[in-house]
Amino acid sequence: MKEVNIALLGFGTVGKGVYELLEKNAPLIYQKTGLYPRIKKILVRDLNKIREKNVPSNLFTLNIEEILEDDSLPVVCELIGGINPAKEYVLRSLQKGKHVITANKAILAEFGDEIWKEASQQKSYLGFEASVGGGIPIIKTLKEALIGNKIKSIVGIVNGTTNYILTRMLENNLSFKEALKEAQAKGYAEADPSLDIKGWDSAHKISILASLAFGTYISFSKVYVEGIEEIDLLDLKFAKDFGYVIKLLAFAQKDKNRLEIRVHPTLIPENHVLASVRLNYNAFYITGDFVGDILLYGLGAGKEPTASAVVSDIVSAMEYTNLKREPFIKYPSMDKSLEKFLKPIEEVEFKYYIRFSAMDKPGVLSKISGILGKYEISIASVVQIGRQKKKGSVPIVMLTHESKEKNLRKALKEIDQLEVVTAITKKIRIWD
Amino acid sequence: MKEVNIALLGFGTVGKGVYELLEKNAPLIYQKTGLYPRIKKILVRDLNKIREKNVPSNLFTLNIEEILEDDSLPVVCELIGGINPAKEYVLRSLQKGKHVITANKAILAEFGDEIWKEASQQKSYLGFEASVGGGIPIIKTLKEALIGNKIKSIVGIVNGTTNYILTRMLENNLSFKEALKEAQAKGYAEADPSLDIKGWDSAHKISILASLAFGTYISFSKVYVEGIEEIDLLDLKFAKDFGYVIKLLAFAQKDKNRLEIRVHPTLIPENHVLASVRLNYNAFYITGDFVGDILLYGLGAGKEPTASAVVSDIVSAMEYTNLKREPFIKYPSMDKSLEKFLKPIEEVEFKYYIRFSAMDKPGVLSKISGILGKYEISIASVVQIGRQKKKGSVPIVMLTHESKEKNLRKALKEIDQLEVVTAITKKIRIWD
Repeated sequence: MKEVNIALLGFGTVGKGVYELLEKNAPLIYQKTGLYPRIKKILVRDLNKIREKNVPSNLFTLNIEEILEDDSLPVVCELIGGINPAKEYVLRSLQKGKHVITANKAILAEFGDEIWKEASQQKSYLGFEASVGGGIPIIKTLKEALIGNKIKSIVGIVNGTTNYILTRMLENNLSFKEALKEAQAKGYAEADPSLDIKGWDSAHKISILASLAFGTYISFSKVYVEGIEEIDLLDLKFAKDFGYVIKLLAFAQKDKNRLEIRVHPTLIPENHVLASVRLNYNAFYITGDFVGDILLYGLGAGKEPTASAVVSDIVSAMEYTNLKREPFIKYPSMDKSLEKFLKPIEEVEFKYYIRFSAMDKPGVLSKISGILGKYEISIASVVQIGRQKKKGSVPIVMLTHESKEKNLRKALKEIDQLEVVTAITKKIRIWD
Repeated sequence: MKEVNIALLGFGTVGKGVYELLEKNAPLIYQKTGLYPRIKKILVRDLNKIREKNVPSNLFTLNIEEILEDDSLPVVCELIGGINPAKEYVLRSLQKGKHVITANKAILAEFGDEIWKEASQQKSYLGFEASVGGGIPIIKTLKEALIGNKIKSIVGIVNGTTNYILTRMLENNLSFKEALKEAQAKGYAEADPSLDIKGWDSAHKISILASLAFGTYISFSKVYVEGIEEIDLLDLKFAKDFGYVIKLLAFAQKDKNRLEIRVHPTLIPENHVLASVRLNYNAFYITGDFVGDILLYGLGAGKEPTASAVVSDIVSAMEYTNLKREPFIKYPSMDKSLEKFLKPIEEVEFKYYIRFSAMDKPGVLSKISGILGKYEISIASVVQIGRQKKKGSVPIVMLTHESKEKNLRKALKEIDQLEVVTAITKKIRIWD
């Protein structure tokens, strides 16, 4: 039986998932490929912490050099997470001529230029299916299945935690805080949830997808990001009244040579297929010039789905190990020229949902709409609802036609200085 | 510039789509792979019918031997459709050592054993992404992305025509006939729509997917099939009252060693993600032991989406052309042993939607439910609605708990012989 030896770096949730998957399904892979994937070494930080009865203790090592220097280990899976030492181990493994699989979105979003360049120079396979979308084959789809397409846009619900929170708020009348607390209790959100709820996790992921879709590394630092901390149950309900659902969406769009890469809460029509993506599910809605619109949906995180993605990359790496040749499809190039085509958010035109808090007295609407008019923002519909009347203040909700972000910002600044306006105005972009 | 020469067999809708895609996006493929796909020959039946201004006339040939005997054409795309001569050309191309791409579901569903065996013996790449789901990468996903998973089930809306008809009926109050006529006018349905509406097209597709998912060729002749001809607008509306949508679903499920491969109209809960698949879109809902549930959604037919799938296979074939080696992942085996584990539909347990037409007089319900009880079919809910009262006859609609198909058939046969029952009873299976 021909075997391919594999090293795991890290033995947390994902590492254990990969181990369990191969324990169970490696024979299936052998049957389909004629090669048996065999885990031979597992790098851990503390041998005392390892309490896995079913894993032979001789697999564990504390010493990365034992793996890097061992030529009988052609495939390395980096499942440590974080920047250090993950990035160093990935680069050093590549330099040793190993094929590398990583589930690490942060190192690719922040140092993709360096890592892809190294893989390319070493003619090594670098698999990163698990870095975005858990078990959903979004990387393979963009890289291989849609290779004949110019990608026009990717619109994704790429973070399960925030989608869970928004779903529970709307469907169960929870406040943001209550829903977050529940997500934490269920293990969907971290004790410090900032990376998720501020949108940074989504930004990591969309920068990787944008790099793949447009063929050029696009740094995560170039992504415009807003999180969901400011979304109120009231907004979810008003949006529903208008026939919309609010989701945290990540966008990567290319129009001629203008690129837009951004993450922000967004109103989408409730009959759009993305609106049916509930709880901690993720989805990617991709438009290509030939394929039209396709959607991939599934669990974007978790032990088993992520292990499924890592193992699909292991099988690809096994193929290349057997071949001793470079991967056929190239990595995103290091040509940074695309970044100069990034369209600043201020220049983008959106339709907006706007919620003003204003005193309940005559002339208020006229003042507000006067200022909007001055900045050429035209109103599509208005509701004023007594739903949350307090201290003489009422919410006034408007949907606008397309307006430039720059103009809207100026208008809202002016409006918020009106004496009749009692709180900072909220705006949420609309995509339909 | 390294080129790979390609021959197209057939120049209908899909052939033209592939030609146009490569005219437009071949440079993109070259940029990503270092190989330029170049169409060098196109087999047609009648040179006089070719009126494509932009295609050089020297590409066309009437003679298949010109392609088969030409060793400078390593990649052949069969885009003729139908069984003859498509099957012969595919087999002969494989025998000549060529890599073959086919968009032909019929030849794979009916002769997959023969064709996969030939590809396997010749160590040739046989691409068939376009045979199922148009531009949706369902084949690549099952074969490669989910290779670490035992597939538990695939549930799909795999035929755009029937999904279009059912969507339009429900949303626009159309009868089956009206919706079919509209689908024909829009080019979504053929003049003879039997293949689609009777479910045979779906059966072709699910037999290919089942073969891939379970690793063994499963002939289309083993698929249990019901179409949508009997679905009434009334049923769509009753289903909606109960919170369900009716879709034509294709199932491939494996439970221990029992296989179920079937196509039939099905009630699914309206909040299920498959329920949001409207009009001529397709979707595949796959459950694997590690990945959990994933869904792929998109246009399952049409010139451009299908061309996108063919070209992704062309790129895979190009990789193998360059390598001169056999594909890494094996084709479904010829071991037919799985077919003996097929569970007859009579043995499967379903929940059912049942619509009786009965006289509007006392005691009817008691007679019907008495017979159901005799066959151990228990009722989950009942409505009797005067909605379509005619000639003293009313519809009585029930949802049942899980019951064996065999028992339900016996019960309905007996019920339909009651004097108070005025028309054949309709049953539609429920999946939730």
